[in-house]
Amino acid sequence: MKKKIKKVNAAILIIGNEILSGRTQDKNVVFLSNWLNLKCGISVNEVRIIPDKEKVIIENILLLSKKFKYVFTTGGIGPTHDDITAKSISKAFKVKYEYHREAYLILEKYYGKKNFNDGRKKMAMMPKGAKLIYNPSSAAPGFMIKNVLSLPGVPSILNSMIENCKRYLNKGAKVHSKTLNLYTVESNISKKLESIQRKYKTFVDIGSYPFFRLGKIGVAIVCRSTSPVKLKSVNKELVKLAKSKKIKILNI
Amino acid sequence: MKKKIKKVNAAILIIGNEILSGRTQDKNVVFLSNWLNLKCGISVNEVRIIPDKEKVIIENILLLSKKFKYVFTTGGIGPTHDDITAKSISKAFKVKYEYHREAYLILEKYYGKKNFNDGRKKMAMMPKGAKLIYNPSSAAPGFMIKNVLSLPGVPSILNSMIENCKRYLNKGAKVHSKTLNLYTVESNISKKLESIQRKYKTFVDIGSYPFFRLGKIGVAIVCRSTSPVKLKSVNKELVKLAKSKKIKILNI
Repeated sequence: MKKKIKKVNAAILIIGNEILSGRTQDKNVVFLSNWLNLKCGISVNEVRIIPDKEKVIIENILLLSKKFKYVFTTGGIGPTHDDITAKSISKAFKVKYEYHREAYLILEKYYGKKNFNDGRKKMAMMPKGAKLIYNPSSAAPGFMIKNVLSLPGVPSILNSMIENCKRYLNKGAKVHSKTLNLYTVESNISKKLESIQRKYKTFVDIGSYPFFRLGKIGVAIVCRSTSPVKLKSVNKELVKLAKSKKIKILNI
Repeated sequence: MKKKIKKVNAAILIIGNEILSGRTQDKNVVFLSNWLNLKCGISVNEVRIIPDKEKVIIENILLLSKKFKYVFTTGGIGPTHDDITAKSISKAFKVKYEYHREAYLILEKYYGKKNFNDGRKKMAMMPKGAKLIYNPSSAAPGFMIKNVLSLPGVPSILNSMIENCKRYLNKGAKVHSKTLNLYTVESNISKKLESIQRKYKTFVDIGSYPFFRLGKIGVAIVCRSTSPVKLKSVNKELVKLAKSKKIKILNI
């Protein structure tokens, strides 16, 4: 009997004018994608970067939460006027935007009653029914509502919170990956590569990425599959291809 | 008479499994956004990262090219089987996917007739009617069709081609930007900041971004506007706010 492979997907929604304007280099996509792939067997199938605009956030939350198993948002859950993620998600799902009791207590304890001002209180405002994602760095929690998980935009804080997302996620089949670095140019192997990809179409994704290293150009052939056996077969064919063309392999 | 501000927008469509999987850190969004902003007065309003799948590329090209003045795609115009951008755009716009005569000649000259194999020839295949974006690094041109400009995914090559896009773009009003770094935390200034943003709503976008520098935490207040005069007024108010709260300013 053929084992059924459980594929679980996700989208990432980066909310922030600073990424769109080019002021800030996003680092959360790489981190989240790797973590989801390696730790949870979840593939990121789409990423969007959008401005801090309520209407745009609502549209995207509704669309992506229907289309994908999980949606991860980053950014817009701080204390300032441009932090409108929690409010927008509340509107998208037509639930109240209100103080989350536990989040309120966490923040009050962190800042002290005297210093717990309106800006700080705002970080306890969430969609009604949200579950908390604890924050070991700076207290203010992220949250999950329906299939949407909201995390902060600052990479170091996001990274410190990621393990606390795990309890909310159904894992998928682990995707294995194997990279073969060839000292050649893409156009030298493209035809044969295509026929190998065609042969293993359903099982293995083959990607081809040029690189420049130590003054030499090469191509990294990246194969990804939930089946280690099929991955090995493809790798064998690739090594055969390289040998037949007298291409130097950097690693096997 | 009020001068009419010409706003021109764009979207970026990153095509590539390697970015979605977390294997590769995207660097093209920052570069393109900054170049479009500073050199062309064009604001990037949305970014999407999608896999190398024809159906997904077609959907996104149709949607984004309707919604925005320009669409920049990166990735998928090389010689291998996973390079399907040109073919997918041809299908999206229902035009023939064929050899572009000039691109063919450029590539044939670059590689030499003898070495001009099928993979290399593929890079001359484009949507019928495409205009070339010349490539001073590695010959293979990008192209523009309708309002879509297709560039390669390798950042160094993309960067070397960018000036050759200029001739195809209508410029917008330059967006000026001013940053004020304050040694405080967001929640200390969020209320007043909100009221300043409300006052200048139509003219200035105010963003607030926490930073950590030399062991100290602070907030970068980034103001963006097409009007240098309004920008100056907002800056004055921000300085006043900082002084009233005895907040140290890093630069004015």
